[in-house]
Amino acid sequence: MRHSVLILSPSVLLLLLDVLPSSHAFLPSSLSGSALFAPSRLSSSCSTAGARKSWSSSRNLALRMESPVEEAKAWTAAGMSVEEFFERSVGSWRSLRSSHNIAFAQLEEVNSDIDITQVAADDSEFLDICKTYNFEPEKACSSIRMSWEGSSDWDENEVIKGSTVLVLYKDEERKGKLLRSVGYTETIPAVGEWTMQEDGTFVLHTFYDRAAAEERIWFATPDLRMRCSIIKTQHGKGVLTASLSTEVRDKSK
Amino acid sequence: MRHSVLILSPSVLLLLLDVLPSSHAFLPSSLSGSALFAPSRLSSSCSTAGARKSWSSSRNLALRMESPVEEAKAWTAAGMSVEEFFERSVGSWRSLRSSHNIAFAQLEEVNSDIDITQVAADDSEFLDICKTYNFEPEKACSSIRMSWEGSSDWDENEVIKGSTVLVLYKDEERKGKLLRSVGYTETIPAVGEWTMQEDGTFVLHTFYDRAAAEERIWFATPDLRMRCSIIKTQHGKGVLTASLSTEVRDKSK
Repeated sequence: MRHSVLILSPSVLLLLLDVLPSSHAFLPSSLSGSALFAPSRLSSSCSTAGARKSWSSSRNLALRMESPVEEAKAWTAAGMSVEEFFERSVGSWRSLRSSHNIAFAQLEEVNSDIDITQVAADDSEFLDICKTYNFEPEKACSSIRMSWEGSSDWDENEVIKGSTVLVLYKDEERKGKLLRSVGYTETIPAVGEWTMQEDGTFVLHTFYDRAAAEERIWFATPDLRMRCSIIKTQHGKGVLTASLSTEVRDKSK
Repeated sequence: MRHSVLILSPSVLLLLLDVLPSSHAFLPSSLSGSALFAPSRLSSSCSTAGARKSWSSSRNLALRMESPVEEAKAWTAAGMSVEEFFERSVGSWRSLRSSHNIAFAQLEEVNSDIDITQVAADDSEFLDICKTYNFEPEKACSSIRMSWEGSSDWDENEVIKGSTVLVLYKDEERKGKLLRSVGYTETIPAVGEWTMQEDGTFVLHTFYDRAAAEERIWFATPDLRMRCSIIKTQHGKGVLTASLSTEVRDKSK
Protein backbone atom coordinates (compact mmCIF):
# COMPACT_ATOMS: atom_id res chain seq x y z
CA MET A 1 0.00 0.00 0.00
CA ARG A 2 1.42 3.35 -0.99
CA HIS A 3 0.35 6.89 -0.09
CA SER A 4 2.83 9.23 -1.69
CA VAL A 5 1.32 12.69 -1.36
CA LEU A 6 3.03 14.04 -4.41
CA ILE A 7 1.44 11.67 -6.87
CA LEU A 8 -1.83 10.43 -5.40
CA SER A 9 -4.96 12.46 -5.81
CA PRO A 10 -6.78 13.74 -2.70
CA SER A 11 -9.63 11.40 -3.55
CA VAL A 12 -7.35 8.49 -2.72
CA LEU A 13 -5.87 10.24 0.29
CA LEU A 14 -9.30 11.00 1.64
CA LEU A 15 -10.16 7.31 1.53
CA LEU A 16 -7.92 7.07 4.57
CA LEU A 17 -10.45 9.08 6.48
CA ASP A 18 -13.26 6.73 5.62
CA VAL A 19 -11.60 3.78 7.32
CA LEU A 20 -11.15 5.66 10.58
CA PRO A 21 -13.67 6.19 13.33
CA SER A 22 -14.57 9.85 13.72
CA SER A 23 -13.23 9.81 17.26
CA HIS A 24 -9.71 9.02 16.07
CA ALA A 25 -7.19 11.12 17.91
CA PHE A 26 -5.85 13.08 14.94
CA LEU A 27 -9.23 14.50 14.06
CA PRO A 28 -10.46 17.40 16.15
CA SER A 29 -13.58 16.32 18.01
CA SER A 30 -15.02 19.75 17.60
CA LEU A 31 -18.42 18.75 18.92
CA SER A 32 -17.19 17.21 22.12
CA GLY A 33 -17.68 19.10 25.35
CA SER A 34 -14.05 19.17 26.35
CA ALA A 35 -12.52 22.60 26.81
CA LEU A 36 -9.38 21.40 25.06
CA PHE A 37 -11.25 21.55 21.78
CA ALA A 38 -12.76 24.97 22.29
CA PRO A 39 -11.70 27.22 19.43
CA SER A 40 -12.27 30.32 21.51
CA ARG A 41 -9.19 32.33 22.41
CA LEU A 42 -8.33 32.49 26.07
CA SER A 43 -7.66 35.90 27.42
CA SER A 44 -4.17 36.25 28.80
CA SER A 45 -4.21 34.73 32.24
CA CYS A 46 -0.85 35.98 33.43
CA SER A 47 0.73 39.38 33.15
CA THR A 48 4.34 40.00 32.21
CA ALA A 49 5.20 39.95 35.88
CA GLY A 50 3.36 36.62 36.09
CA ALA A 51 0.61 35.46 38.44
CA ARG A 52 1.29 31.84 39.12
CA LYS A 53 -1.98 31.11 40.87
CA SER A 54 -3.97 31.68 37.67
CA TRP A 55 -2.54 28.71 35.76
CA SER A 56 -5.49 26.44 36.12
CA SER A 57 -8.33 28.95 35.91
CA SER A 58 -8.31 29.54 32.17
CA ARG A 59 -9.42 26.03 31.28
CA ASN A 60 -12.70 26.69 33.07
CA LEU A 61 -12.91 30.01 31.29
CA ALA A 62 -12.57 28.24 27.93
CA LEU A 63 -15.41 25.91 28.83
CA ARG A 64 -17.69 28.83 29.60
CA MET A 65 -16.76 30.60 26.36
CA GLU A 66 -17.58 27.60 24.14
CA SER A 67 -20.46 28.02 21.76
CA PRO A 68 -21.91 25.92 18.91
CA VAL A 69 -21.36 28.78 16.46
CA GLU A 70 -17.64 28.94 17.15
CA GLU A 71 -17.29 25.16 17.00
CA ALA A 72 -18.67 25.01 13.48
CA LYS A 73 -15.77 27.07 12.09
CA ALA A 74 -12.55 25.45 10.93
CA TRP A 75 -10.10 25.41 13.79
CA THR A 76 -7.02 27.64 13.67
CA ALA A 77 -4.13 28.24 16.03
CA ALA A 78 -3.79 31.85 14.88
CA GLY A 79 -3.66 34.30 17.77
CA MET A 80 -3.05 31.60 20.39
CA SER A 81 -1.53 32.91 23.62
CA VAL A 82 1.45 31.22 25.22
CA GLU A 83 -0.75 30.25 28.18
CA GLU A 84 -3.21 28.48 25.91
CA PHE A 85 -0.31 26.81 24.08
CA PHE A 86 0.99 25.36 27.35
CA GLU A 87 -2.46 24.30 28.50
CA ARG A 88 -3.23 22.51 25.27
CA SER A 89 0.14 20.75 25.48
CA VAL A 90 -0.85 19.04 28.73
CA GLY A 91 -1.81 15.41 28.11
CA SER A 92 -0.51 12.18 26.63
CA TRP A 93 0.89 12.13 23.11
CA ARG A 94 2.04 9.45 20.66
CA SER A 95 4.98 10.97 18.85
CA LEU A 96 6.54 10.05 15.52
CA ARG A 97 9.79 11.86 14.87
CA SER A 98 11.82 11.82 11.66
CA SER A 99 15.31 13.23 12.06
CA HIS A 100 17.32 14.24 9.03
CA ASN A 101 21.05 13.98 9.42
CA ILE A 102 21.92 16.75 6.99
CA ALA A 103 25.53 15.80 6.24
CA PHE A 104 24.76 12.19 5.38
CA ALA A 105 21.16 12.66 4.14
CA GLN A 106 20.09 9.87 6.47
CA LEU A 107 16.77 9.47 8.18
CA GLU A 108 16.15 8.26 11.71
CA GLU A 109 12.67 7.29 12.91
CA VAL A 110 11.82 7.64 16.58
CA ASN A 111 8.51 6.51 18.04
CA SER A 112 7.74 7.60 21.57
CA ASP A 113 5.08 8.25 24.14
CA ILE A 114 5.15 11.69 25.70
CA ASP A 115 3.38 12.75 28.88
CA ILE A 116 3.02 16.40 29.77
CA THR A 117 1.66 17.41 33.16
CA GLN A 118 1.32 20.67 35.02
CA VAL A 119 3.82 21.18 37.81
CA ALA A 120 2.75 22.31 41.26
CA ALA A 121 4.04 25.57 42.71
CA ASP A 122 5.82 23.68 45.50
CA ASP A 123 7.46 21.06 43.26
CA SER A 124 11.07 20.65 44.34
CA GLU A 125 12.47 20.30 40.83
CA PHE A 126 10.63 23.46 39.76
CA LEU A 127 12.03 25.37 42.75
CA ASP A 128 15.54 24.03 42.06
CA ILE A 129 15.52 25.26 38.45
CA CYS A 130 14.39 28.74 39.45
CA LYS A 131 17.15 28.83 42.06
CA THR A 132 19.78 27.62 39.56
CA TYR A 133 19.03 30.50 37.21
CA ASN A 134 18.18 33.04 39.91
CA PHE A 135 14.58 33.50 38.76
CA GLU A 136 11.80 34.16 41.28
CA PRO A 137 9.44 31.12 41.41
CA GLU A 138 6.38 33.30 42.10
CA LYS A 139 6.93 35.22 38.85
CA ALA A 140 6.86 32.07 36.70
CA CYS A 141 3.97 32.06 34.26
CA SER A 142 3.59 28.30 33.87
CA SER A 143 5.51 25.12 34.48
CA ILE A 144 5.15 21.67 32.97
CA ARG A 145 6.88 18.31 33.29
CA MET A 146 7.57 16.43 30.08
CA SER A 147 8.44 12.72 30.16
CA TRP A 148 9.16 10.54 27.16
CA GLU A 149 9.88 6.92 26.41
CA GLY A 150 10.55 5.60 22.96
CA SER A 151 12.76 3.77 20.54
CA SER A 152 14.67 4.51 17.36
CA ASP A 153 14.86 2.45 14.19
CA TRP A 154 18.64 2.88 14.37
CA ASP A 155 18.76 0.73 17.50
CA GLU A 156 15.46 -0.82 18.42
CA ASN A 157 16.82 -2.49 21.54
CA GLU A 158 17.68 0.74 23.27
CA VAL A 159 14.97 2.65 25.11
CA ILE A 160 15.12 6.43 24.82
CA LYS A 161 13.77 7.74 28.08
CA GLY A 162 13.88 11.02 29.90
CA SER A 163 12.09 13.75 31.76
CA THR A 164 12.46 17.50 32.01
CA VAL A 165 10.72 20.33 33.82
CA LEU A 166 10.07 23.49 31.80
CA VAL A 167 9.44 26.86 33.45
CA LEU A 168 7.96 29.71 31.44
CA TYR A 169 8.71 33.38 32.11
CA LYS A 170 7.39 36.34 30.16
CA ASP A 171 9.42 39.44 29.30
CA GLU A 172 6.64 40.78 27.11
CA GLU A 173 3.21 39.49 26.14
CA ARG A 174 4.58 37.32 23.32
CA LYS A 175 8.21 36.71 24.30
CA GLY A 176 10.25 35.59 27.24
CA LYS A 177 12.49 32.91 28.73
CA LEU A 178 12.06 29.18 29.11
CA LEU A 179 14.11 27.40 31.76
CA ARG A 180 14.55 23.68 31.51
CA SER A 181 16.12 21.18 33.82
CA VAL A 182 17.62 19.04 31.05
CA GLY A 183 18.16 20.30 27.51
CA TYR A 184 17.51 18.38 24.33
CA THR A 185 21.07 18.20 23.15
CA GLU A 186 22.94 18.22 26.43
CA THR A 187 22.24 16.80 29.82
CA ILE A 188 22.79 20.13 31.55
CA PRO A 189 20.19 22.80 32.36
CA ALA A 190 19.52 25.45 29.72
CA VAL A 191 17.71 28.77 29.27
CA GLY A 192 15.90 29.37 26.00
CA GLU A 193 14.38 32.49 24.44
CA TRP A 194 10.83 32.05 23.20
CA THR A 195 8.48 34.07 21.05
CA MET A 196 4.86 33.37 20.27
CA GLN A 197 4.14 34.15 16.62
CA GLU A 198 0.82 35.61 15.45
CA ASP A 199 0.00 32.34 13.67
CA GLY A 200 0.20 30.45 16.96
CA THR A 201 3.71 29.03 16.54
CA PHE A 202 5.82 28.82 19.69
CA VAL A 203 9.40 29.50 18.58
CA LEU A 204 12.21 28.57 20.94
CA HIS A 205 15.93 29.32 20.59
CA THR A 206 18.27 27.61 23.01
CA PHE A 207 22.02 28.04 23.10
CA TYR A 208 24.15 25.29 24.54
CA ASP A 209 27.90 24.98 25.02
CA ARG A 210 28.68 23.89 21.50
CA ALA A 211 25.30 23.86 19.73
CA ALA A 212 22.08 25.82 19.33
CA ALA A 213 18.54 24.52 18.95
CA GLU A 214 15.74 26.26 17.06
CA GLU A 215 12.30 24.77 17.60
CA ARG A 216 8.90 25.66 16.14
CA ILE A 217 5.95 24.03 17.82
CA TRP A 218 2.32 24.56 16.89
CA PHE A 219 -1.09 22.91 16.88
CA ALA A 220 -2.32 21.81 13.45
CA THR A 221 -5.53 20.70 15.20
CA PRO A 222 -6.30 20.62 18.94
CA ASP A 223 -5.11 16.99 18.96
CA LEU A 224 -2.11 17.21 16.64
CA ARG A 225 0.98 19.05 17.82
CA MET A 226 3.72 19.70 15.28
CA ARG A 227 7.34 20.23 16.28
CA CYS A 228 10.00 21.18 13.77
CA SER A 229 13.51 21.41 15.22
CA ILE A 230 16.92 22.35 13.93
CA ILE A 231 20.17 21.68 15.75
CA LYS A 232 22.85 24.11 14.63
CA THR A 233 26.45 24.67 15.52
CA GLN A 234 26.81 27.22 18.30
CA HIS A 235 27.11 30.27 16.06
CA GLY A 236 24.42 29.15 13.67
CA LYS A 237 26.78 28.59 10.75
CA GLY A 238 25.95 24.95 10.06
CA VAL A 239 22.99 22.66 10.60
CA LEU A 240 23.60 19.20 12.03
CA THR A 241 20.10 17.80 12.27
CA ALA A 242 16.59 18.83 11.34
CA SER A 243 13.58 16.92 12.54
CA LEU A 244 9.82 16.83 12.39
CA SER A 245 7.70 15.39 15.17
CA THR A 246 4.01 14.80 14.79
CA GLU A 247 2.40 14.31 18.18
CA VAL A 248 -1.09 12.85 18.27
CA ARG A 249 -3.08 13.18 21.49
CA ASP A 250 -3.64 9.80 23.13
CA LYS A 251 -7.15 9.96 24.53
CA SER A 252 -7.03 6.41 25.89
CA LYS A 253 -4.94 7.56 28.86
CA MET B 1 26.13 4.06 14.00
CA ARG B 2 23.58 6.07 15.90
CA HIS B 3 22.98 9.82 16.19
CA SER B 4 19.87 10.29 18.25
CA VAL B 5 19.67 14.00 18.97
CA LEU B 6 17.78 13.52 22.19
CA ILE B 7 20.44 11.55 23.94
CA LEU B 8 23.82 12.32 22.40
CA SER B 9 25.82 15.27 23.60
CA PRO B 10 26.72 18.05 21.15
CA SER B 11 30.35 17.02 21.47
CA VAL B 12 29.47 13.79 19.70
CA LEU B 13 27.19 15.54 17.22
CA LEU B 14 29.90 18.04 16.40
CA LEU B 15 32.27 15.23 15.52
CA LEU B 16 30.19 14.97 12.36
CA LEU B 17 31.50 18.34 11.35
CA ASP B 18 35.11 17.29 11.73
CA VAL B 19 34.78 14.60 9.10
CA LEU B 20 33.35 16.97 6.53
CA PRO B 21 35.24 19.36 4.26
CA SER B 22 34.40 22.97 5.05
CA SER B 23 33.03 23.45 1.55
CA HIS B 24 30.28 20.87 2.12
CA ALA B 25 26.99 22.10 0.75
CA PHE B 26 25.10 22.28 4.05
CA LEU B 27 27.54 24.75 5.56
CA PRO B 28 27.17 28.35 4.48
CA SER B 29 30.32 29.35 2.65
CA SER B 30 30.13 32.79 4.17
CA LEU B 31 33.52 33.83 2.92
CA SER B 32 32.89 32.94 -0.70
CA GLY B 33 32.29 35.74 -3.16
CA SER B 34 28.91 34.54 -4.36
CA ALA B 35 26.02 36.91 -3.91
CA LEU B 36 23.85 33.98 -2.83
CA PHE B 37 25.68 33.92 0.50
CA ALA B 38 25.46 37.62 1.16
CA PRO B 39 23.69 38.18 4.47
CA SER B 40 22.68 41.68 3.42
CA ARG B 41 18.97 42.27 2.91
CA LEU B 42 17.88 43.13 -0.58
CA SER B 43 15.64 46.13 -0.87
CA SER B 44 12.28 45.26 -2.35
CA SER B 45 12.77 45.04 -6.08
CA CYS B 46 9.14 44.94 -7.10
CA SER B 47 6.24 47.05 -5.97
CA THR B 48 2.79 45.73 -5.16
CA ALA B 49 1.81 46.42 -8.74
CA GLY B 50 4.90 44.44 -9.78
CA ALA B 51 7.69 45.41 -12.16
CA ARG B 52 8.69 42.25 -13.92
CA LYS B 53 11.80 43.64 -15.54
CA SER B 54 13.54 44.07 -12.18
CA TRP B 55 13.75 40.32 -11.38
CA SER B 56 17.39 39.87 -12.22
CA SER B 57 18.77 43.20 -11.06
CA SER B 58 18.72 42.58 -7.32
CA ARG B 59 21.33 39.85 -7.44
CA ASN B 60 23.85 42.39 -8.71
CA LEU B 61 22.69 44.74 -5.99
CA ALA B 62 23.43 42.06 -3.37
CA LEU B 63 26.93 41.63 -4.74
CA ARG B 64 27.61 45.34 -4.42
CA MET B 65 26.23 45.42 -0.87
CA GLU B 66 28.46 42.59 0.38
CA SER B 67 31.05 43.51 2.97
CA PRO B 68 33.49 41.51 5.13
CA VAL B 69 31.88 42.93 8.28
CA GLU B 70 28.45 41.61 7.39
CA GLU B 71 29.82 38.23 6.41
CA ALA B 72 31.37 37.68 9.81
CA LYS B 73 27.94 37.71 11.53
CA ALA B 74 25.86 34.57 11.93
CA TRP B 75 23.48 34.28 9.03
CA THR B 76 19.76 34.74 9.60
CA ALA B 77 16.73 34.67 7.32
CA ALA B 78 14.91 37.24 9.48
CA GLY B 79 13.50 40.12 7.45
CA MET B 80 13.96 38.34 4.11
CA SER B 81 11.79 39.74 1.33
CA VAL B 82 9.77 37.46 -0.93
CA GLU B 83 11.95 38.51 -3.88
CA GLU B 84 15.10 37.43 -2.06
CA PHE B 85 13.40 34.19 -1.03
CA PHE B 86 12.63 33.36 -4.67
CA GLU B 87 16.12 34.34 -5.85
CA ARG B 88 17.81 32.20 -3.24
CA SER B 89 15.57 29.28 -4.23
CA VAL B 90 16.97 29.25 -7.75
CA GLY B 91 19.49 26.42 -8.19
CA SER B 92 19.86 22.66 -7.82
CA TRP B 93 18.88 20.95 -4.59
CA ARG B 94 19.22 17.47 -3.14
CA SER B 95 16.05 16.88 -1.18
CA LEU B 96 15.29 14.41 1.59
CA ARG B 97 11.64 14.30 2.53
CA SER B 98 10.07 12.42 5.42
CA SER B 99 6.29 12.18 5.21
CA HIS B 100 4.27 11.23 8.25
CA ASN B 101 1.02 9.45 7.54
CA ILE B 102 -0.82 10.68 10.63
CA ALA B 103 -3.56 8.05 10.79
CA PHE B 104 -1.21 5.08 10.60
CA ALA B 105 1.89 6.70 12.16
CA GLN B 106 3.91 5.53 9.18
CA LEU B 107 6.92 7.18 7.67
CA GLU B 108 7.77 7.49 3.99
CA GLU B 109 11.21 8.58 2.82
CA VAL B 110 11.55 10.35 -0.52
CA ASN B 111 14.92 11.31 -2.01
CA SER B 112 14.87 13.62 -4.97
CA ASP B 113 16.78 16.12 -7.05
CA ILE B 114 15.09 19.46 -7.52
CA ASP B 115 15.97 22.09 -10.08
CA ILE B 116 14.62 25.61 -9.80
CA THR B 117 15.16 28.08 -12.65
CA GLN B 118 13.87 31.56 -13.40
CA VAL B 119 11.20 31.72 -16.08
CA ALA B 120 11.44 34.19 -18.97
CA ALA B 121 8.73 36.80 -19.44
CA ASP B 122 7.77 35.26 -22.80
CA ASP B 123 7.64 31.64 -21.57
CA SER B 124 4.52 30.03 -23.01
CA GLU B 125 3.67 28.04 -19.85
CA PHE B 126 3.99 31.20 -17.76
CA LEU B 127 1.69 33.10 -20.13
CA ASP B 128 -0.80 30.21 -20.14
CA ILE B 129 -1.08 30.16 -16.33
CA CYS B 130 -1.68 33.91 -16.16
CA LYS B 131 -4.37 33.53 -18.82
CA THR B 132 -6.02 30.61 -17.00
CA TYR B 133 -6.49 32.67 -13.83
CA ASN B 134 -7.02 36.00 -15.59
CA PHE B 135 -3.91 37.64 -14.09
CA GLU B 136 -1.91 40.18 -16.08
CA PRO B 137 1.54 38.71 -16.94
CA GLU B 138 3.27 42.09 -16.73
CA LYS B 139 2.15 42.51 -13.10
CA ALA B 140 3.75 39.24 -11.99
CA CYS B 141 6.49 39.77 -9.45
CA SER B 142 8.52 36.66 -10.18
CA SER B 143 8.18 33.30 -11.86
CA ILE B 144 10.16 30.08 -11.44
CA ARG B 145 10.06 26.59 -12.88
CA MET B 146 10.51 23.72 -10.43
CA SER B 147 11.36 20.22 -11.68
CA TRP B 148 11.90 17.16 -9.53
CA GLU B 149 12.90 13.55 -9.96
CA GLY B 150 13.13 11.11 -7.12
CA SER B 151 12.15 7.86 -5.50
CA SER B 152 10.33 6.70 -2.41
CA ASP B 153 11.32 3.92 -0.03
CA TRP B 154 7.74 2.65 -0.36
CA ASP B 155 8.35 1.72 -4.00
CA GLU B 156 11.92 2.13 -5.10
CA ASN B 157 11.21 1.06 -8.67
CA GLU B 158 8.88 3.93 -9.39
CA VAL B 159 10.32 7.29 -10.38
CA ILE B 160 8.54 10.34 -8.98
CA LYS B 161 8.96 13.01 -11.60
CA GLY B 162 7.28 16.29 -12.35
CA SER B 163 7.54 19.94 -13.17
CA THR B 164 5.53 23.03 -12.30
CA VAL B 165 5.69 26.73 -13.05
CA LEU B 166 5.03 29.10 -10.12
CA VAL B 167 3.98 32.71 -10.65
CA LEU B 168 4.18 35.18 -7.77
CA TYR B 169 1.84 38.14 -7.37
CA LYS B 170 1.85 40.64 -4.53
CA ASP B 171 -1.28 42.08 -2.95
CA GLU B 172 0.75 43.79 -0.24
CA GLU B 173 4.46 43.94 0.55
CA ARG B 174 4.42 40.66 2.47
CA LYS B 175 1.37 38.82 1.11
CA GLY B 176 -0.17 37.85 -2.20
CA LYS B 177 -1.09 35.03 -4.57
CA LEU B 178 0.91 32.19 -6.02
CA LEU B 179 -0.32 30.58 -9.22
CA ARG B 180 0.96 27.16 -10.13
CA SER B 181 0.49 25.05 -13.19
CA VAL B 182 0.30 21.75 -11.29
CA GLY B 183 -0.43 21.53 -7.58
CA TYR B 184 1.23 19.23 -5.09
CA THR B 185 -1.79 17.14 -4.27
CA GLU B 186 -3.73 17.30 -7.51
CA THR B 187 -2.74 17.44 -11.13
CA ILE B 188 -4.84 20.53 -11.81
CA PRO B 189 -3.75 24.17 -11.59
CA ALA B 190 -4.14 25.93 -8.26
CA VAL B 191 -3.96 29.39 -6.70
CA GLY B 192 -2.36 29.72 -3.28
CA GLU B 193 -2.28 32.56 -0.75
CA TRP B 194 1.18 33.40 0.55
CA THR B 195 2.53 35.51 3.38
CA MET B 196 6.14 36.29 4.17
CA GLN B 197 6.69 36.18 7.94
CA GLU B 198 9.08 38.52 9.72
CA ASP B 199 11.39 35.60 10.49
CA GLY B 200 11.82 34.90 6.78
CA THR B 201 9.35 32.02 6.51
CA PHE B 202 7.33 31.85 3.30
CA VAL B 203 3.91 30.50 4.30
CA LEU B 204 1.64 29.17 1.56
CA HIS B 205 -1.99 28.05 1.86
CA THR B 206 -3.50 26.28 -1.13
CA PHE B 207 -7.05 24.99 -1.35
CA TYR B 208 -7.82 22.15 -3.71
CA ASP B 209 -11.06 20.35 -4.54
CA ARG B 210 -11.02 18.06 -1.54
CA ALA B 211 -7.88 19.00 0.36
CA ALA B 212 -5.84 21.96 1.56
CA ALA B 213 -2.08 22.34 1.79
CA GLU B 214 -0.21 24.47 4.31
CA GLU B 215 3.49 24.91 3.62
CA ARG B 216 6.22 26.75 5.49
CA ILE B 217 9.48 27.17 3.64
CA TRP B 218 12.54 28.97 4.95
CA PHE B 219 16.31 29.08 4.70
CA ALA B 220 18.15 27.69 7.72
CA THR B 221 21.37 28.69 5.98
CA PRO B 222 21.83 30.08 2.44
CA ASP B 223 22.38 26.49 1.24
CA LEU B 224 19.77 24.65 3.31
CA ARG B 225 16.11 25.17 2.51
CA MET B 226 13.55 23.76 4.91
CA ARG B 227 10.02 22.89 3.85
CA CYS B 228 7.40 21.75 6.35
CA SER B 229 4.06 20.83 4.78
CA ILE B 230 0.69 19.72 6.04
CA ILE B 231 -2.05 18.23 3.86
CA LYS B 232 -5.44 18.78 5.48
CA THR B 233 -8.98 17.91 4.54
CA GLN B 234 -10.61 20.73 2.63
CA HIS B 235 -12.07 22.51 5.64
CA GLY B 236 -8.98 22.06 7.77
CA LYS B 237 -10.64 19.64 10.22
CA GLY B 238 -8.25 16.73 9.86
CA VAL B 239 -4.62 16.29 8.87
CA LEU B 240 -3.75 13.51 6.43
CA THR B 241 -0.02 13.96 6.03
CA ALA B 242 2.73 16.12 7.48
CA SER B 243 6.17 16.20 5.97
CA LEU B 244 9.59 17.74 6.37
CA SER B 245 11.91 18.30 3.44
CA THR B 246 15.51 19.33 3.89
CA GLU B 247 16.92 20.65 0.65
CA VAL B 248 20.68 21.01 0.36
CA ARG B 249 22.10 23.11 -2.46
CA ASP B 250 23.97 21.00 -4.98
CA LYS B 251 26.93 23.10 -6.02
CA SER B 252 28.30 20.47 -8.37
CA LYS B 253 25.73 21.40 -11.02
